[in-house]
Amino acid sequence: MNKLETLGERKIIEIIRNQLELMPHMPVPFGDDISALSIGDEKLAILKTDMLVGKTDVPPQMNLYQAARKAVIMNISDFAAKGVKPVAILVSLGLPRGMTENDVEAVASGLNAGAREYAAYVLGGDTSEASDLVVSCAVFGVAKKNALMLRSGAQPGDVVAVTGAFGKTAAGLKILMSPTSPSAQLGTGLVDSVLMPKARLSEGLALAESSAVTASIDSSDGLAWSLHELARASHVGFLIDNLPMAEEIVEFARLYKLDPIELSLYGGEEYELVVTVKPALFEKARKKVGLIRIGYVTAKRTLMLKVRRKRTPIQARGWEHFKAALQKS
Amino acid sequence: MNKLETLGERKIIEIIRNQLELMPHMPVPFGDDISALSIGDEKLAILKTDMLVGKTDVPPQMNLYQAARKAVIMNISDFAAKGVKPVAILVSLGLPRGMTENDVEAVASGLNAGAREYAAYVLGGDTSEASDLVVSCAVFGVAKKNALMLRSGAQPGDVVAVTGAFGKTAAGLKILMSPTSPSAQLGTGLVDSVLMPKARLSEGLALAESSAVTASIDSSDGLAWSLHELARASHVGFLIDNLPMAEEIVEFARLYKLDPIELSLYGGEEYELVVTVKPALFEKARKKVGLIRIGYVTAKRTLMLKVRRKRTPIQARGWEHFKAALQKS
Repeated sequence: MNKLETLGERKIIEIIRNQLELMPHMPVPFGDDISALSIGDEKLAILKTDMLVGKTDVPPQMNLYQAARKAVIMNISDFAAKGVKPVAILVSLGLPRGMTENDVEAVASGLNAGAREYAAYVLGGDTSEASDLVVSCAVFGVAKKNALMLRSGAQPGDVVAVTGAFGKTAAGLKILMSPTSPSAQLGTGLVDSVLMPKARLSEGLALAESSAVTASIDSSDGLAWSLHELARASHVGFLIDNLPMAEEIVEFARLYKLDPIELSLYGGEEYELVVTVKPALFEKARKKVGLIRIGYVTAKRTLMLKVRRKRTPIQARGWEHFKAALQKS
Repeated sequence: MNKLETLGERKIIEIIRNQLELMPHMPVPFGDDISALSIGDEKLAILKTDMLVGKTDVPPQMNLYQAARKAVIMNISDFAAKGVKPVAILVSLGLPRGMTENDVEAVASGLNAGAREYAAYVLGGDTSEASDLVVSCAVFGVAKKNALMLRSGAQPGDVVAVTGAFGKTAAGLKILMSPTSPSAQLGTGLVDSVLMPKARLSEGLALAESSAVTASIDSSDGLAWSLHELARASHVGFLIDNLPMAEEIVEFARLYKLDPIELSLYGGEEYELVVTVKPALFEKARKKVGLIRIGYVTAKRTLMLKVRRKRTPIQARGWEHFKAALQKS
């Protein structure tokens, strides 16, 4: 019998889905970033839950305030990708023994900060004792029917675009894990991208309003993985001819003798949006949101990276729980 | 600096609340069993999250199917207490390494069973690796404004009533923890009450419709604790003159030389509803739902148990996380 470590998160989710009796007429298919259900008047209740676990999601240098804030941000990032305003957040906390009053204050303060940065509120929750720090957030919002940006919907010829450059968190994580630090100035920005991530909520809301987007996802599992998920849900392929690498990581990769393409494609824990856009509406959307065009959608269902006329396949790997944790251990 | 183990869950929740910027005009006060926010047309979105942790909430004899089902039931029980129909459930799972495909199937199947027993659906969720089994459920429903049964609202003179007799799970837990078993027939029902708990949803919905209830809570932390919570939120006291002890536990207590009153008042993990009811409407509500009258609300803010003319105070203890876990270890 296979153990979880060899299955990977996607297979585990499939096993779970096979045991569930699905709600008829779900407005959003099982497996997208959020769940939805109709509440009348062409309105949908939008729900999302995602759990941060100290052992696998929190680097040693991340403090409790930052960890709790990150748990909120990773949920809000999925709302951003779907173009929905998060309104209310509930939190289930698993707290290890030995934590102090100050520790709990830091956790609560991080939760509040993450919510208030995006104009949402923590409404309530629950606490339990657990072996790990566990911060499970449930987020609620309301959306208009047909205004959601799903994973499915990309059409051949659509522009592929992102909200920012990639590679900073992969570089930042390497700095945090490495005993020898690079120049202080270079390191601070990269490390901050890990410790204090930001969700692209205003961009996501503006994109949803533009009606220009045909498919959308955030890049929390890495750019390559996100592209594969969009391709799978939309039954298309991608040619990426303009990989947007953060300036700092080019310098960082040179110092550390690393491949900046690898850092940008397969890093993960980054919260940019990855979208496909109707070509006729791209320029308008770009100006409004500051999108970076990185390639286009192809009918052929392959994912290719083109760098200086050379094409290489983009692999379906990135940050996947269980498998990833195993690789690191 | 105090450690969590010495603080108790109520104090921890107070520490957290002090760090939160609360949403203005919350329809339900922070600290009740569910959270709510207005979605227009006199309707409220109702949200609840509660986490089951293997280490503290799952007796060794409870299998994964039962544990996952229980995680759903404990959330639905809070919806029952507030008189709200649960519609959709999202689940964040923390799964320990070494679990197999069959284990994940058992968990998913238990989640589905818990939801479908109460006509709700599991819409989606998230999986992570964790040291403990963690099942964090977020439940969503819609309620009419003013139809919610809150903890506050009990008035002196109101009838105190419950939906069933108490003590079975406390007895069942003792059987599960004890090497010497009582007569098989006696044990099965008691153990089942621990392994396969039921939420009083139809009763809760009928009570909300009756408009007879002034305050309501479930008894998941024990009858005594629930009464103290109602008393605290409603600024009243109780005189309990008819403690409803399950028949089986009277026999069980005799065999084990235990106090059946202790088992009934301070057990916990029981999912009956504890309500206060307007006297003029009690008889109608009793017939409709099968309520058991156990006492009445007093203006004097004390909680007293009256047994054969003798009055003793009902203590504010029961199943409280952290402290409880410490006592047991």
